[in-house]
Amino acid sequence: MATGAIDEASNMKVILKHYVSGSPQETDMHLTAGTIKLKASAGSNAVVVKNLFLSCDPYMIFKMMKLERHYSDPYTPGSPITGYGVAKVLDSAHPDFKKDDLVWGLTGWEEYSLITETNHMFKIRHTDVPLSFYAGILGMPGMTAYIGFYELCSPQKGEYVFVSAACGAVGQLVGQFAKLQGCYVVGSAGSNEKVDLLKNKFGFDEAFNYKEEPDFTATLKRLFPEGIDIYFDNVGGKMLDAVLLNLRVRARIAVCGMISQYNLEQPEGVHNLTSIVMKQARMQGYLVFEYYHLYPKYLEMILPKIREEKVVYVEDIADGLENAPAALVGLFSGRNIGKQVVAVNCL
Amino acid sequence: MATGAIDEASNMKVILKHYVSGSPQETDMHLTAGTIKLKASAGSNAVVVKNLFLSCDPYMIFKMMKLERHYSDPYTPGSPITGYGVAKVLDSAHPDFKKDDLVWGLTGWEEYSLITETNHMFKIRHTDVPLSFYAGILGMPGMTAYIGFYELCSPQKGEYVFVSAACGAVGQLVGQFAKLQGCYVVGSAGSNEKVDLLKNKFGFDEAFNYKEEPDFTATLKRLFPEGIDIYFDNVGGKMLDAVLLNLRVRARIAVCGMISQYNLEQPEGVHNLTSIVMKQARMQGYLVFEYYHLYPKYLEMILPKIREEKVVYVEDIADGLENAPAALVGLFSGRNIGKQVVAVNCL
Ligand SMILES: NC(=O)c1ccc[n+]([C@@H]2O[C@H](COP(=O)([O-])OP(=O)(O)OC[C@H]3O[C@@H](n4cnc5c(N)ncnc54)[C@H](OP(=O)(O)O)[C@@H]3O)[C@@H](O)[C@H]2O)c1
Ligand SMILES: NC(=O)c1ccc[n+]([C@@H]2O[C@H](COP(=O)([O-])OP(=O)(O)OC[C@H]3O[C@@H](n4cnc5c(N)ncnc54)[C@H](OP(=O)(O)O)[C@@H]3O)[C@@H](O)[C@H]2O)c1
Repeated sequence: MATGAIDEASNMKVILKHYVSGSPQETDMHLTAGTIKLKASAGSNAVVVKNLFLSCDPYMIFKMMKLERHYSDPYTPGSPITGYGVAKVLDSAHPDFKKDDLVWGLTGWEEYSLITETNHMFKIRHTDVPLSFYAGILGMPGMTAYIGFYELCSPQKGEYVFVSAACGAVGQLVGQFAKLQGCYVVGSAGSNEKVDLLKNKFGFDEAFNYKEEPDFTATLKRLFPEGIDIYFDNVGGKMLDAVLLNLRVRARIAVCGMISQYNLEQPEGVHNLTSIVMKQARMQGYLVFEYYHLYPKYLEMILPKIREEKVVYVEDIADGLENAPAALVGLFSGRNIGKQVVAVNCL
Repeated sequence: MATGAIDEASNMKVILKHYVSGSPQETDMHLTAGTIKLKASAGSNAVVVKNLFLSCDPYMIFKMMKLERHYSDPYTPGSPITGYGVAKVLDSAHPDFKKDDLVWGLTGWEEYSLITETNHMFKIRHTDVPLSFYAGILGMPGMTAYIGFYELCSPQKGEYVFVSAACGAVGQLVGQFAKLQGCYVVGSAGSNEKVDLLKNKFGFDEAFNYKEEPDFTATLKRLFPEGIDIYFDNVGGKMLDAVLLNLRVRARIAVCGMISQYNLEQPEGVHNLTSIVMKQARMQGYLVFEYYHLYPKYLEMILPKIREEKVVYVEDIADGLENAPAALVGLFSGRNIGKQVVAVNCL
C-alpha cells in the first residue's frame, strides 16, 4: 500500500496466462505481485491512479482470445488485463487531470495503474451517488443502455419492448428506461431470482427464465400477442431467431451484444432473417464508445432519476482483486446478479 | 379480342391450381378462357383495363404459398393470379382515370382486368420510353433499387458496394446507381453470360458467377480487400453470411429480398451476425410500396438518365400469356436475363 510519502508501491495484478478459446476460466488468469512508481513523468500526459472499482464486462472475452480483425487489440499474455474502472488520481502529467481527481475509464486490473491513454477517461464531478455507479449506470454500461434504447430505437409510448439478459448491467436499465417511456416491457434472464428482480425491483411488466422455456417463439408469442416493436438484443442466437418471428411492422432491434455466441467455436445459425424484409425491420449494431460525446447529455438525464429513485441500480460487488478472475468469468454463466464490479481499494 | 364496339370480350387467365410449397412449377398454374364485361359500373370507382405487360416478381411466390401472417394475402386457388402490370384503360368509373389512359400498378394475369383497388395505380405520363419499362425501371423494381440504395444506404462517393442477384430487375439498377454515385461496385449473378453483362453493359467494376465460387467469404475478401460499405441484399443465406465477415465499419445492408431462401422448407442459418455489433453495421428491411410517395422524385431523377442513356435497362420479354407461368417460375432458377416481363396484348 502506498502512503502519501513513498513514490513506489507494491502492486497486485491480474495477469492473462494465455489466450483462451471457448468460455474463459478462472485458471486462465493469475495474480502476481509487482511494484509501481507512483509518479507520472513530466511531459508524458500520463496519470497514475489508485484503482477503486474494476468493471467486469462481457467484451473482455474477445481480448482474451486471439481474434483476427477485431475492433480492439487482444490482451498480451503475461501482462495485466485492462478494463473499465473507477479510480483516484495520485499523480498527473496531464493538463486535464490533477491529484485527487476521481475518474472513470480504461485502466489496468491491478491496484495502481499508470495510464498513458486518457482519451476515454472521464472526470467524476458528482459524488453524492455511489462511486461504483461509475462502473455501471453512470459509466459505460449506462451509456450503452441509453444509446441503444433512446438513440437507436426511438421508443414511442405504448410500444412493445423486449430485453434479453435483462437483469444485467445494461438490461436492467433498458427495462426501466422503457417504463419511463411508457412502453410495455418484458425481460428474459437465467434464473428465477433474476426474474423476480425484473418484475419486483425494476418494474418490468413481465419476465421469464429462458432456461425453463422450451420454445422461445411460443413464449414470446404469448407475452407479445401484438408482436415486438423494439428488441434490445444482448444475447443473439436462438432468442434473436425467436424474436424475428414475433416482430411488428417497422420493428427496431438494437444489436447491443450476442453473449450467447461469444464462447462458441462455431456461432449458431439464425434462420428467420426474412422477417427483416417482411416486417420492414431494422437491426442496428453499435459500439458505445463512439457515442461518448453524448455522455454529458446522459448524465443530465440520469442523475436526477437516480437521486429521485426513479431509476434503481443493482450491483454485484466482488471484494478484492483476488476475486476478480472469478467475477469476470462468472458473466458467461450468469453468476452475476446485476452489474458485476470488483472493489479493489478503499477511497 | 375486343373491338371498339363490343362490351364483352373473351379473356384468357392464368389460374393458380393449388398452393405450392418449395419452388413453384409451371404446372402449378394453368390457362383458362373466360369472358369479361368491358364496362365499369357507374359509382364503383373501378376501371377496366387491357393488360399490355405483366411483371414477373419474386414476391409472387409468397402469394402462391399459404403463409401465416404475411404482409400480403395469398392468391385464391382457382382464381387468376395478380401482379404488377402496364395496361390501358378501356373504361373507368374512377375520377382519376379515363379511357385510353396508360397506367401501371396491380392488375390480373389475364388479357383484360376489372380493377377495383386503384390505390397503387399510377398514370403513365411519359411515353417516349418503352412502355414495358413501367413494369421495371420505371415501376416497382426501379423504385425498389432507388429506395434501397439511396434512401436506406446513403451512399458516399468512393464507398465499396456489393449487389447480389445483380443482373436482375432490381440489381442491374443498383449497380448503375452505385457507379453514378462514384462508388466501386461488384455484382454476383448465376451465369457467365450475366457476369459479362454486369461488367460490359452495366459498368460494374467487378462481377462473379457465384455458382463457380466455392468460398464466398474468400471471393469477397479478394474483391473487397478494404471491406464492404454497402451490401444490397437480394438473396440472403450463405452470401449474406459471407458479406457479414467482410463488412467495413458502419456498413449498411439494404435487406431488399432473400430469394435464395424463399423456396426452402427450412431457411438456412446465418452465423456471422456478431459482425453487426463489431462493425456497428445496420441491416434495414423495407417494402417498396411504403415509399411510393417518392415516385415523382424518382421519375424526375431517372427519366433524363434513360433518355441520355446514362442508365440502361435489360429486359427479358416473354411473348404471350401462355408463356407467363414459365416466365414466372424461371425467376427461381435464374432463367431470366434482366427484368422478366410478359407481353400480353399490343397497344
Ligand atoms: N455494444 C456495446 O457497445 C456494448 C457495451 C456493453 C455491453 N454490451 C453487450 O451487452 C450485453 C450485456 O452486457 P452487460 O454488461 O449488461 O452484462 P451482464 O448482463 O451484466 O452479464 C452478462 C449476462 O449475460 C447472460 N448470459 C451469459 N451467457 C448467456 C447465454 N449463453 N445465453 C443467454 N444469456 C447469457 C447472463 O445472465 P442470465 O443469467 O440472464 O443468463 C449474464 O449475467 C453483452 O452482450 C455485452 O457484450 C455491448
Ligand atoms: N423489398 C421490396 O419491396 C422488394 C421489391 C422488389 C423485389 N424485391 C426483392 O429483390 C430481389 C430481386 O428481385 P428482382 O425483381 O430484381 O428479381 P430478378 O433478380 O430479376 O430475378 C430473380 C433472380 O434471383 C436469382 N436467384 C434465384 N434463385 C436464387 C438463389 N437460390 N440464390 C441466388 N440467387 C437466386 C436469379 O438470378 P441468378 O442467375 O443471379 O441466380 C434470378 O434471375 C428479390 O429477392 C425480391 O424478392 C424486394
